[in-house]
Amino acid sequence: MFISVNKLANELPNDKPDNLAANALQEGLGGQFGEMRTMMQYLFQNFNFRGKAKPYQDLIKSVASEEIGHVELISTTIGMLLDGSTSAEPPNKLPLEIALQAGNIHHFLVASQGAMPVDSAGNPWSGSYVYNSGNLVLDLLYNLMLECTGRLQKCRLYAMSDNKSFRATVSYLIVRDLAHEKVFAKALESLGVDWDKTLPIPKTDSSKMPEVKKLEDRNLHNQQWTFSNEESGLSEIFTGSSPFGDGELEALDGLPEGFDIPQMPEAPQEYAPGFDKVLKDKAMSTI
Amino acid sequence: MFISVNKLANELPNDKPDNLAANALQEGLGGQFGEMRTMMQYLFQNFNFRGKAKPYQDLIKSVASEEIGHVELISTTIGMLLDGSTSAEPPNKLPLEIALQAGNIHHFLVASQGAMPVDSAGNPWSGSYVYNSGNLVLDLLYNLMLECTGRLQKCRLYAMSDNKSFRATVSYLIVRDLAHEKVFAKALESLGVDWDKTLPIPKTDSSKMPEVKKLEDRNLHNQQWTFSNEESGLSEIFTGSSPFGDGELEALDGLPEGFDIPQMPEAPQEYAPGFDKVLKDKAMSTI
Amino acid sequence: MFISVNKLANELPNDKPDNLAANALQEGLGGQFGEMRTMMQYLFQNFNFRGKAKPYQDLIKSVASEEIGHVELISTTIGMLLDGSTSAEPPNKLPLEIALQAGNIHHFLVASQGAMPVDSAGNPWSGSYVYNSGNLVLDLLYNLMLECTGRLQKCRLYAMSDNKSFRATVSYLIVRDLAHEKVFAKALESLGVDWDKTLPIPKTDSSKMPEVKKLEDRNLHNQQWTFSNEESGLSEIFTGSSPFGDGELEALDGLPEGFDIPQMPEAPQEYAPGFDKVLKDKAMSTI
Amino acid sequence: MFISVNKLANELPNDKPDNLAANALQEGLGGQFGEMRTMMQYLFQNFNFRGKAKPYQDLIKSVASEEIGHVELISTTIGMLLDGSTSAEPPNKLPLEIALQAGNIHHFLVASQGAMPVDSAGNPWSGSYVYNSGNLVLDLLYNLMLECTGRLQKCRLYAMSDNKSFRATVSYLIVRDLAHEKVFAKALESLGVDWDKTLPIPKTDSSKMPEVKKLEDRNLHNQQWTFSNEESGLSEIFTGSSPFGDGELEALDGLPEGFDIPQMPEAPQEYAPGFDKVLKDKAMSTI
Amino acid sequence: MFISVNKLANELPNDKPDNLAANALQEGLGGQFGEMRTMMQYLFQNFNFRGKAKPYQDLIKSVASEEIGHVELISTTIGMLLDGSTSAEPPNKLPLEIALQAGNIHHFLVASQGAMPVDSAGNPWSGSYVYNSGNLVLDLLYNLMLECTGRLQKCRLYAMSDNKSFRATVSYLIVRDLAHEKVFAKALESLGVDWDKTLPIPKTDSSKMPEVKKLEDRNLHNQQWTFSNEESGLSEIFTGSSPFGDGELEALDGLPEGFDIPQMPEAPQEYAPGFDKVLKDKAMSTI
Amino acid sequence: MFISVNKLANELPNDKPDNLAANALQEGLGGQFGEMRTMMQYLFQNFNFRGKAKPYQDLIKSVASEEIGHVELISTTIGMLLDGSTSAEPPNKLPLEIALQAGNIHHFLVASQGAMPVDSAGNPWSGSYVYNSGNLVLDLLYNLMLECTGRLQKCRLYAMSDNKSFRATVSYLIVRDLAHEKVFAKALESLGVDWDKTLPIPKTDSSKMPEVKKLEDRNLHNQQWTFSNEESGLSEIFTGSSPFGDGELEALDGLPEGFDIPQMPEAPQEYAPGFDKVLKDKAMSTI
Repeated sequence: MFISVNKLANELPNDKPDNLAANALQEGLGGQFGEMRTMMQYLFQNFNFRGKAKPYQDLIKSVASEEIGHVELISTTIGMLLDGSTSAEPPNKLPLEIALQAGNIHHFLVASQGAMPVDSAGNPWSGSYVYNSGNLVLDLLYNLMLECTGRLQKCRLYAMSDNKSFRATVSYLIVRDLAHEKVFAKALESLGVDWDKTLPIPKTDSSKMPEVKKLEDRNLHNQQWTFSNEESGLSEIFTGSSPFGDGELEALDGLPEGFDIPQMPEAPQEYAPGFDKVLKDKAMSTI
Repeated sequence: MFISVNKLANELPNDKPDNLAANALQEGLGGQFGEMRTMMQYLFQNFNFRGKAKPYQDLIKSVASEEIGHVELISTTIGMLLDGSTSAEPPNKLPLEIALQAGNIHHFLVASQGAMPVDSAGNPWSGSYVYNSGNLVLDLLYNLMLECTGRLQKCRLYAMSDNKSFRATVSYLIVRDLAHEKVFAKALESLGVDWDKTLPIPKTDSSKMPEVKKLEDRNLHNQQWTFSNEESGLSEIFTGSSPFGDGELEALDGLPEGFDIPQMPEAPQEYAPGFDKVLKDKAMSTI
Repeated sequence: MFISVNKLANELPNDKPDNLAANALQEGLGGQFGEMRTMMQYLFQNFNFRGKAKPYQDLIKSVASEEIGHVELISTTIGMLLDGSTSAEPPNKLPLEIALQAGNIHHFLVASQGAMPVDSAGNPWSGSYVYNSGNLVLDLLYNLMLECTGRLQKCRLYAMSDNKSFRATVSYLIVRDLAHEKVFAKALESLGVDWDKTLPIPKTDSSKMPEVKKLEDRNLHNQQWTFSNEESGLSEIFTGSSPFGDGELEALDGLPEGFDIPQMPEAPQEYAPGFDKVLKDKAMSTI
Repeated sequence: MFISVNKLANELPNDKPDNLAANALQEGLGGQFGEMRTMMQYLFQNFNFRGKAKPYQDLIKSVASEEIGHVELISTTIGMLLDGSTSAEPPNKLPLEIALQAGNIHHFLVASQGAMPVDSAGNPWSGSYVYNSGNLVLDLLYNLMLECTGRLQKCRLYAMSDNKSFRATVSYLIVRDLAHEKVFAKALESLGVDWDKTLPIPKTDSSKMPEVKKLEDRNLHNQQWTFSNEESGLSEIFTGSSPFGDGELEALDGLPEGFDIPQMPEAPQEYAPGFDKVLKDKAMSTI
Repeated sequence: MFISVNKLANELPNDKPDNLAANALQEGLGGQFGEMRTMMQYLFQNFNFRGKAKPYQDLIKSVASEEIGHVELISTTIGMLLDGSTSAEPPNKLPLEIALQAGNIHHFLVASQGAMPVDSAGNPWSGSYVYNSGNLVLDLLYNLMLECTGRLQKCRLYAMSDNKSFRATVSYLIVRDLAHEKVFAKALESLGVDWDKTLPIPKTDSSKMPEVKKLEDRNLHNQQWTFSNEESGLSEIFTGSSPFGDGELEALDGLPEGFDIPQMPEAPQEYAPGFDKVLKDKAMSTI
Repeated sequence: MFISVNKLANELPNDKPDNLAANALQEGLGGQFGEMRTMMQYLFQNFNFRGKAKPYQDLIKSVASEEIGHVELISTTIGMLLDGSTSAEPPNKLPLEIALQAGNIHHFLVASQGAMPVDSAGNPWSGSYVYNSGNLVLDLLYNLMLECTGRLQKCRLYAMSDNKSFRATVSYLIVRDLAHEKVFAKALESLGVDWDKTLPIPKTDSSKMPEVKKLEDRNLHNQQWTFSNEESGLSEIFTGSSPFGDGELEALDGLPEGFDIPQMPEAPQEYAPGFDKVLKDKAMSTI
């Protein structure tokens, strides 16, 4: 089972609405290499795990549980980027006119200016993305490649917009994906692979990515929480020096403290939540 | 954020392997009205929630968090039904010969005799299933319909096999879907709807479904946990008599105690996890 | 069987071409909650209807048959919005240059400036949209939700463009979806549900939607035709006061009078119909 | 607009239930070359028709309108083949046990033993099937190919089962597809093509297909109705000798007489329509 | 088996980058009527060919083999149109900012400014496109229609942009599709069909398409190579006058000479190939 | 450009028809990790290759070109397994009756007993499978994982049937996938990775797979041809000892000798090729 904790994984500063940036960010949510995919892939690998190599299962489960919170973080960011992007003020004359040229018109027509389980080209997330061969070396190899690709795409996103909300989440995920690259690289190292200088992917210079640098200064790129309230074998594998030579790994129990989750306001032009006075009174009297 | 708890939602008795029953159960996992869908739909409705009617959001979030555990339960059950279904003993002469006539050959060829994010006809789960209009009455109405459909399909599954592992999970979900029908029916009642005798759907006679009856005797069909370690507004709505006249509702903090998660054995004919002696030694020395 | 009547459901005024509005309108045609979906869903529910509650079947069949005409109306409107949108006059220098920035480039590259069975994000219509559980209460509940969602999306479309062709069709469908909400709300009322003030969805103020108001003044939001040339049980259910307290319901035999269907001109830059002189002569001599 | 006529296109004899035959028939309903596709393709070609060659548009519209009735016919046949196929009598011990080995388990788990908009391999119907290039010669050529392929598949279906319900519908569609081959072959002939002996496709010997022969003896393979209550240009093209040298073409106004539509009984094991006594009483008192 | 020849089918002049034109060209690569489809359709028809009509199989195989090179040509052109389209110079301030308004954001976020197996609306290529009925007349008829549609879409592309790289490839394919129309029209002629003046489709005036005219002046629209190093029956069918009365057909052994394949430069902002100094040294020392 | 060579990659012995084995083999053709995918993925990586590391591009291109021949081999094998599987002899009474219980009914209803671009669960091949990040290390890592997964699935197929045609092709591909694992493992080794004992995947014992052993005795698992008629940089990387310690690598120019391609007979019950006497005479007189 799983339980929710009412905190967001990272702090989310507010900036101007930007529906094009919101749409780009959908790749990190519902794209083939986005957070829904890592979440579901690792959950399935955990549920279907075979044999007694429990620390490897625990390691996968830790990341799986963390990824649910990443789906939350990126969805919340998309919502923040979309919210308030519509108005009937010039150059628009109609409340939702902006939708006709939006990154994805569905954000306005279908989803009430909220996140959707689709990628940045509008393709719905598909169960066919989930990889779980059952062969442990192969699954770890795939997971490593998946994290590298996720991080590669987020580094490209970083170069598409400097909107502060967008950048905060993208930078956080660049750092966490780097930590996850290490989780899987380390697991394969424990089975004999020597990566030499081939990792991480992509090769970045965080001195040119200040938002990333700030998070790495906290050693966030070397930490992995268990995201569990029980004992885990994570630390048996995720220990010692970073396989990429950039610090010391830290396996930590539980989860980080987190930040308040921003609450989205009503959007009357979307009829969301769409209560008239009668219903609002009913709702209030209930509570 | 979310954390894992190392317990299964329901007890899972062992019975004979049955790959056809396993395939049928895929509908409840990756089908259009299965647990992956309820999980993702409610997560998105929670992440995108607009306005101040917090108890309604908390109620959605409670069920969302519970559903992640249902995905775990049903995946584990599918794995148990598949495991051991292959052998080279007569009438088969080859280790995986059974796969050619399986409910879904992918269970053996792709997934190492584990669960997959597909439905019982082999269609991958799709993000297009997720409904989140942003209009609260409409979302609640959809959720009610979704739970009714999920329960309807599970009642049909109940009539397809009496395998004990299969029945245990199907019966548990019939009861929990009934509780969720009440969650959403009650939320709409709080806004004014009177359901009279139209619900629940389907109309069942649990005296003819002993596994279901036993769970209802524990009042499990009237309980809803918050699946959170923090305060929730769930109890402000989910309170009083059942809208279907079958007992008293109970809003409970946290989560139920749960059961041990069965561990799947190695499946050498699937090369899962596929360690030879060298790799096994490496893995053991790591731990 | 079904027969065509050479009339359009609503009058269609001409305005400037607008391919972005045309693309938005595709949601109402080929979207998950558009007219192709209501048409196919109700047709299947009618074809698969079980049991003797004939008036309920007749009611579903009436709406099903009407929806075929809505597919015609919305397709024709999309065609009108696209037609003439291309030219080689400045700022374009090439006949189809506009296509590169169109709402959906397929309108120009694939469909000869005509309607397509896709949604506004370009996803093809899918048979997986059709819901037909066989449980009558559940099917009616789903249909109610479907009409509400359709109307919700059309109210959002209304706020995206004030092009006259676009608005005429969108407004007509807002009113007809409202009538259909009543059809299904009333059917559920007949089985015991009291909707109180929760419906209709969305709550709109038609005094701010003049094109809608004009149609409601004709009581079009309270009328349902049988769209059949035979006796129907529709009137046994669809009778009395509107369940939303806004007038008296009218069940009517047959179909409304309708309007002339506009004829699309040739589009030589699309090679449509693409006849050269020889073929044109052949075609003419045939007739 | 379109209206329904409460008659089935062909007579439907009852035979034993056969869910495998029902599944095969799904190809003719929701397959890439099935009736939903011809219906939607011709409807779109009609709605998007450009230019003044009205008899060609009328011809397309006639077939389009007929196809809606074919969707009805084939859906009804699938329902008849599925209905009654379940029972708890030996060799089954559970009411829906048969579903585990069905042609498509969804027929029992999702669709209450009714037809679905999918093909015989379970793929949902897709809007991407619809072809409408706008170029008239090309559209006619495609339509000819489409009818030939539909007929080819139906001739293969004929060789898969001799169930009487199945054969009646398959044979009827073989004959009607032949008539439609002629419709489009003739239209292309009017523009100059000489087909010589290449058509029809496939080359069949109806003396070995008695159900087909009987229908051809009525000249049904040379007739085309307008399926309209208004004047049509169909007869300007569809006239004279069959382009395949097998009789005289007949363009007929309106539609054939048709047959009673069988009514499906309740299916309690599917909870369809799922009324308990209370709801049944309500429903009856309504009527 | 198949072997590569290190030459491009047509010369590819360089022009300014244009990501919108690149996206339009995706239709010709991964669209339903694009080169991947013709390639795969003809390959399957060749692999599955039944019976002894070998010249017909050889004819299909010739075109199939040529189409692999067309996939190469169009992919290379898309790459050339995308390359260099990004920069941090005004009006953009970030290296990949342009991606937010691109024809398909995936070109920058997923594909490193390279071609993708998708159409111009972003839909992935699907195996369901491939048509291979096994009936030879029908397959030839479909192939003819496919080539006509491909050429129709390319003529529309021609009218969308005059970028030189774009136009060179589009014009080459217009001419080759015309040759392929003749291949299949001629094959059907050999079986008896007389096309009169209905073909080719579309009817174009190459005097208004100078890039096309230039290629036709080389008789490229009447030539078909075997794209094989062995004897072929192609010339037994593809011989004599063009069925469209525009010259003499030429069946040629082997393949045309071809042109140098342009090499794409590194794209550091995409991390492609993404080598740092260490990896570059390793790579160089290997070679 | 590419040219065909009229030879099959491996010898294909004839055995009894087996449509279930044919369907299983579809995974290796149109599955997510089948030959169509490797072919298209490597072709795209070659077409989109960036930078000057030509030997790496040549290496990818070699495998890409070989894979086209694998698509041919596996398609031909599927055809051989399907052909002759139908008959009207007992226990069947109708010519295509077997189709109703086939692995994929489409083999008989749609594809004339030939191969299709779908996987073993009937899902059409999708362009979304193709991975081409542009980052060279990442692409090589993915390709390695892809070959391992392909080989893993083929080892599972090996355990599903001992039909001789099936086994011949499966065994050949097990060996070639092993060679391709080495191609990509070696390329990554050249950049610094040391795989130790983690590869190959899966760990198999070829002494228990006689058909595989026989091919490995020819050193086929250590050879890679260029599949080109021009100079290639393949040998600069693919040289020295096998990275898995099982022999010496051989980079070879051109392609192996190959075997005769079996010709499929006519299938009159499928109307393939469907010629009647008139058309057969026409076809023969042409040639």
